[in-house]
Formats: sequence, structure tokens, C-alpha cells
Amino acid sequence: MALIVQKFGGTSVGSVERIEQVAEKVKKFREAGHDIVVVVSAMSGETNRLIDLAKQIMPQPDPRELDAIISTGEQVTIGLLSMALIKRGVPAVSYTGNQVRILTDSAHTKARILEIDDQRLRGELAAGRVVVVAGFQGVDEQGNITTLGRGGSDTTGVALAAALKADECQIYTDVDGVYTTDPRVVAKAQRLEKITFEEMLEMASLGSKVLQIRSVEFAGKYNVPLRVLHSFQEGPGTLITIDEEESMEQPIISGIAFNRDEAKLTIRGVPDTPGVAFKILGPVSAANIEVDMIVQNVSHDNTTDFTFTVHRNDYEKALAVLKQTAESIGAREVSGDTNIAKVSIVGVGMRSHAGVASRMFEALAKENINIQMISTSEIKVSVVVEEKYLELAVRALHTAFELDAPARQAE
Amino acid sequence: MALIVQKFGGTSVGSVERIEQVAEKVKKFREAGHDIVVVVSAMSGETNRLIDLAKQIMPQPDPRELDAIISTGEQVTIGLLSMALIKRGVPAVSYTGNQVRILTDSAHTKARILEIDDQRLRGELAAGRVVVVAGFQGVDEQGNITTLGRGGSDTTGVALAAALKADECQIYTDVDGVYTTDPRVVAKAQRLEKITFEEMLEMASLGSKVLQIRSVEFAGKYNVPLRVLHSFQEGPGTLITIDEEESMEQPIISGIAFNRDEAKLTIRGVPDTPGVAFKILGPVSAANIEVDMIVQNVSHDNTTDFTFTVHRNDYEKALAVLKQTAESIGAREVSGDTNIAKVSIVGVGMRSHAGVASRMFEALAKENINIQMISTSEIKVSVVVEEKYLELAVRALHTAFELDAPARQAE
Repeated sequence: MALIVQKFGGTSVGSVERIEQVAEKVKKFREAGHDIVVVVSAMSGETNRLIDLAKQIMPQPDPRELDAIISTGEQVTIGLLSMALIKRGVPAVSYTGNQVRILTDSAHTKARILEIDDQRLRGELAAGRVVVVAGFQGVDEQGNITTLGRGGSDTTGVALAAALKADECQIYTDVDGVYTTDPRVVAKAQRLEKITFEEMLEMASLGSKVLQIRSVEFAGKYNVPLRVLHSFQEGPGTLITIDEEESMEQPIISGIAFNRDEAKLTIRGVPDTPGVAFKILGPVSAANIEVDMIVQNVSHDNTTDFTFTVHRNDYEKALAVLKQTAESIGAREVSGDTNIAKVSIVGVGMRSHAGVASRMFEALAKENINIQMISTSEIKVSVVVEEKYLELAVRALHTAFELDAPARQAE
Repeated sequence: MALIVQKFGGTSVGSVERIEQVAEKVKKFREAGHDIVVVVSAMSGETNRLIDLAKQIMPQPDPRELDAIISTGEQVTIGLLSMALIKRGVPAVSYTGNQVRILTDSAHTKARILEIDDQRLRGELAAGRVVVVAGFQGVDEQGNITTLGRGGSDTTGVALAAALKADECQIYTDVDGVYTTDPRVVAKAQRLEKITFEEMLEMASLGSKVLQIRSVEFAGKYNVPLRVLHSFQEGPGTLITIDEEESMEQPIISGIAFNRDEAKLTIRGVPDTPGVAFKILGPVSAANIEVDMIVQNVSHDNTTDFTFTVHRNDYEKALAVLKQTAESIGAREVSGDTNIAKVSIVGVGMRSHAGVASRMFEALAKENINIQMISTSEIKVSVVVEEKYLELAVRALHTAFELDAPARQAE
């Protein structure tokens, strides 16, 4: 018998029918003898409906009042799911963030969880009840209702699992696990049985939008085993856990991540003096533009070339900022390119294996794909290539790092 | 400067536009220097939408979970109205029943208020804020969310006014006050400046559905001056207060109430023995049928006739019960009539004026209206007449008791 926290997002509880299906799933786990805490989001569309209503009155809604309004979405779902369980003979009870007491700071619409009181939940579990908790919300020291911001329900799930020392936090989604890469790009992509928190963070931030980064960080910090599962299909999903080399037969590379959302900017012929990087990037971040990859080439003729990537939505703005900078620091020219894509190989196995990067470059060279930028971290190598080569690059790397699923036996 | 509690119902906050109008009204009172607590209902239709959702899952919804769900309707309104005030430069803050702490018993969906903590509200008022409180809801000792049942927001308003010792509790509605009778029946009906709690109770229970009976009782008990006003028109409305004979130039009759919702049942030739009333009405109330007027004629031939009225919806059921009773006690016959109407004159002035009833009967006789039943209380005389005479009877009484508005001067 285990204590399991199960989190279902807005799509999974998006209609009465789906709520009934979720109740069936919870019932099965209950009947298998587990103690269950369920965390749910608002029914899909509901949070947006409430935000729209608020914005009709106040285009920049007062944060405290917005939280009071949008937190009602989850409150409706917990009541509905509890009833769907009770109807099935599964004792259940709903808890708002305030009722649990999920104490947060007072940063309305993006509050951080400070403390969870597990007393009442433990009492309900001991009494044999499934506890259905509203995700995304909490309450501050003064009793004001707060919300946790984007992906907040995942965070609630992980935080509850940590507070209750749950055996597992299951995040139900519309995919049946984390894949070696996007199956829409590589047909032979495989579901991973296990992945480490670090790898998952790299995969998530690189565009595998299965889990919110924040909840993965949180789970890693408190060592809460996370499992990604499909809401309405059976299957073991993917377990995200700490790096236990002895028990995990670690492949060198766990997956290939990619991202089409970036654009590249280059400033050439920059006088190479100390502080030049700050002179270039300072105005960019002052304009609230997030920079991802940064590459500075070795200097020659006392000038250097400087390249970085930003989100495509910020490209025009960044280009304008950069042109101004070029003028003020006397750089030669500014250029940019939105036809790029970033491809990354991710894996903790890299730490103990040399030559991973060169194996990557070799695979790309074989396909005549030119590498425009390279950036590396301890468990990841990212390259920027021309966008049209993206799929080819991902497939080539997937094969090169032996991630392809075995071909099915012909009948 | 006064402390005023203002309550706006679902129709008054039924759309973003109406919420803005309410904010304008509140702002005016605030600018006149008053401290304001506003109590609001859910936007019209919202509570029904939520109940429907719940019933799709559980036809007899679990009461605790239903309360968790439907209490969100008011929570959305308080956030929206607070923002509409903030936008207008009026400092405002929303409070749920739990946040105020409106402590109730645990009778979900029909909870009773036990205690209101006025500490936080007083703090907000002292800080110059308008406090927008969710009507209809509270919280029990264990922190479970409760709702107060039908008319609950009126009750919240009155209870808050009592707890805060407010100078006035204003109930905003779709009428501009309490009238001497229904203006759709009598064109010359007049708005009353003042009416006593007792009169209002008689008027309300007789079909003037301006206020929920429960909140009037509550206001009377705690002596909270209640004022009925129109949400979107200017005007003083009607003040409902205690009977202060010295200050109130009391007319004998304050108003004419009527009710078409009743049906009459008669059992004839009942052997007149002690306990016969109970033998007849016991089975009726055992069948959960509420009885309104009861008349027993003097006995002759050792038998008596017994007539009572019930709601028309209960007529068939009551008739069946009565037929069984007639058989078991050896009564001669049972008959019934749904074509009746009840007309009542109401006024505390009756207490000190004799001959009011006979003046009523005289007015009806002049119009050749036959009286089928009569029932009296300290401040009311009710008669049952054939339904087709209802309007005529009401108009005749309105004139007889000098309630008609003075004819407007021709231009």
C-alpha cells in the first residue's frame, strides 16, 4: 500500500464525462489499496473565462481580486470530482488551498508555497477518504487567497507529495510518458521508462512541454518521484527520479530535444574590450528580452563577433536594441536570422562518457547539416542549425545515439 | 457619516455592465462620507449553472460538496465588484464568508449563522476601504464551506449590519420600494415611506416577494433598520423598522396583500368530538403538506364542517389524504376548490382601531363579492374569495382604506 498524489489537469477534467473517467481511475487505485490525494485544475477554459470577465472590468486586474476570482475554477472541480467518487462508493472530500492550508507568500497571481499543513489531510486519509485538493491556489498569512501562476497545479501536486512524503506524485497528461524525442518528428521515438530530474529539466526547457519546469525543480529539490502518465490510457508512463546510477541502466543520451521558437542575432566587428558582453546584453535584458544561447568568437584584429538567441516574438525588438548598441559602441554590423532551430542531446550519461559532442557533430556532418552555434552544459549539447534541417537533424541524432525503437516484427 | 450595509442581488450584478452600475452607486455613497459594506449574490444564472453541473454528476448532490461548488458564484462577484470600485479610485477589498469569518452551523445548503467576527471588517473600514462581502455563504467550526439557502444573501446583509451595528441595511431590488399593493393590480398603489417589520412579514408571506421572510425576521430580531430600494433608479425606497408609534404617522392599514397560489379543501359532516382537528390535519402534515388558513364552523347535529387551504401544488395530494381521513372518521363528504384567492389587509394600526374587519367586509359586500373564509391575526385580516374577484377585491379595499395615490394634476 502506497500513498500516491495524483494530479489531473484542465483537459483531464474538462467535462462531466471526463471527471467521471478520472473518478473511475482514482477508484481503481483506491481499490488496489492505496491512499490517494487527488489534485485538480479548473475545467479547461474556465480560468480563461474568469480572466476575461475580470479584464472586461479592469484591463489590468487587481491581483488580489483576480486571485479571488480565478481560484473558484479549481473549487468547482474539487466538488464535482468528490461527488463523482462518492457516487461510486468511494468516500471522498474536497479541500480548497485555504482548507488544507497551503500557506504561500503574498505575491498574488505568482505566489510561492511556504508551508503545507498536512494534519487535516492525514486525518482524512486515516479515515479512509480520498482527498481532492484544489490545485493552483493557496492562502497567505493574512488569509488572502493566492494563486501560484502557470503550471501551479503541478506545483501543488508535488508540494503535497513532498509534505505527505508520498511514495509517488503522478502527473496525468495527454501523453503517455516522456519520449526520447517528439514522435511526430521521429516515428521511432520511444517512451522512456525513467529519466532523471536534471534530464527532464533540460528536456522540458528545450521544448518538451509535458511538465512545468517549476514542478520538476520542486520535485527534484524534495526528491519526490514524479510519474508522467496518460489521463485516459493505461500504461506505466515515465518515472522521473533522482540519478541512481547503480539501479538505472543509463543510456548515454536520454533524448533529443528541439525548439523552433528562437531567432539568432549577431553583432560583428565589436571592439574587444573588457565589459563588451555587458554593453551588448545589458540593453537587451533592460528591454525585458530573455536571451538563451550566447556565443562569442575569439577575437581577431582587436574586434570580436558576438551571437545570441532570443524568442522569435522578441526578435524585432532585440534587433532594434542591438542596432542602437552597435552604433554607440562602434561595431561594424548587425545581422539576424529567424530561420533557425535549436537541437539538443540530453543525458546524464554524458558526465561519464567522453566524445559525446563529437559523435553528435559527426552525425550532423554526415547529413551535410551546417552547425551555426554550439553551446554545452554538463548533461546537454545544443546546436543551432538552419530551420529546414531540423527534422533531419533530430532523426539523425536519434539513430546515432541508438534511441530508435526496435523495428516491429513483420507478421 | 453613517455605516451602511448594501446588498445587491443576482440580477443587480447579472452582467459586467450592471456590476459597473453598482460600483457607481456605491461610489456615490462613499463620496457622501459613509462607511460601506457591500454584500453581493452570484451573477444571475450562475448558481443554477453550478447546480446543474453538480446534478449531472450526482442527481442528489452531496451537500458539503454542493456548497463548495455553489459558493464560488458569490466569490466571483466580490472580486469583480471590488475591481470595478478600485478602477474608480474607491479603495475596496473582497471577503468570502470564510475570510470575514461568518461562522455557521454545519447544516450544508441551509446553514444558520451563529456568529460573525467583525474584527477584520472594522479594520478595513477604518483603513478607508469599502468591503465587498460574498453573500449566501459561511464556514462551520471545522472550516467546511456552508451556504445559507434561499435568500441567503439578504440574511448575510442583515447579519453583517447587526454585527457591525450598522445604521441601515439597504436591500437593492428590482422594485423601488414596498407598495400598498401590487401596482400591476391597482394602478393607484403607492410606495410606502415606512413599514414595520411585523407588517412586512405579513406582506411578504402573503405574496409581496420583495424580501425574504427570514431576513426580515432577522432584521426585526436585531432591530436593524432595513431599506428596500431600486438597484438602478434613484429614490428613498421603503424603510422597514420597528413600530415607533410616536414618530410614525401610522395609517390604519399599510397595505393589501393577496395570493393566488392556494386551494381550499372542505370536509363536511365530521362527528364533532374532541381531537377531531388533529385527526383531520395530522395526516395532512404527515404528508408534508403545509396548511395555511384553517376554519372550523360551529357544530350542528353533533357534526361540524372543517375547511383549510393548502398550496395549489399540494391540492391533489391533500385531497387524496382527506378522502381517506373522511372514510376513517365517518365524515359525510369531501370537496375542494382551486379557483380561490386570498386577500388580506395588513396594518399595525388595527391594534388600536376597532371596526377594521367590518369595514373590510362592507367594502367587499358593496362589490357583491362573497367571502368564503375569514381568518384574522393581530395586524391582519384575510379572506378567501372566488379567484375571478381578486382584482376587484384588492382595488375595492385599496380605495376603502384610503391607500389610493392622489390623482395627478391634469396639465
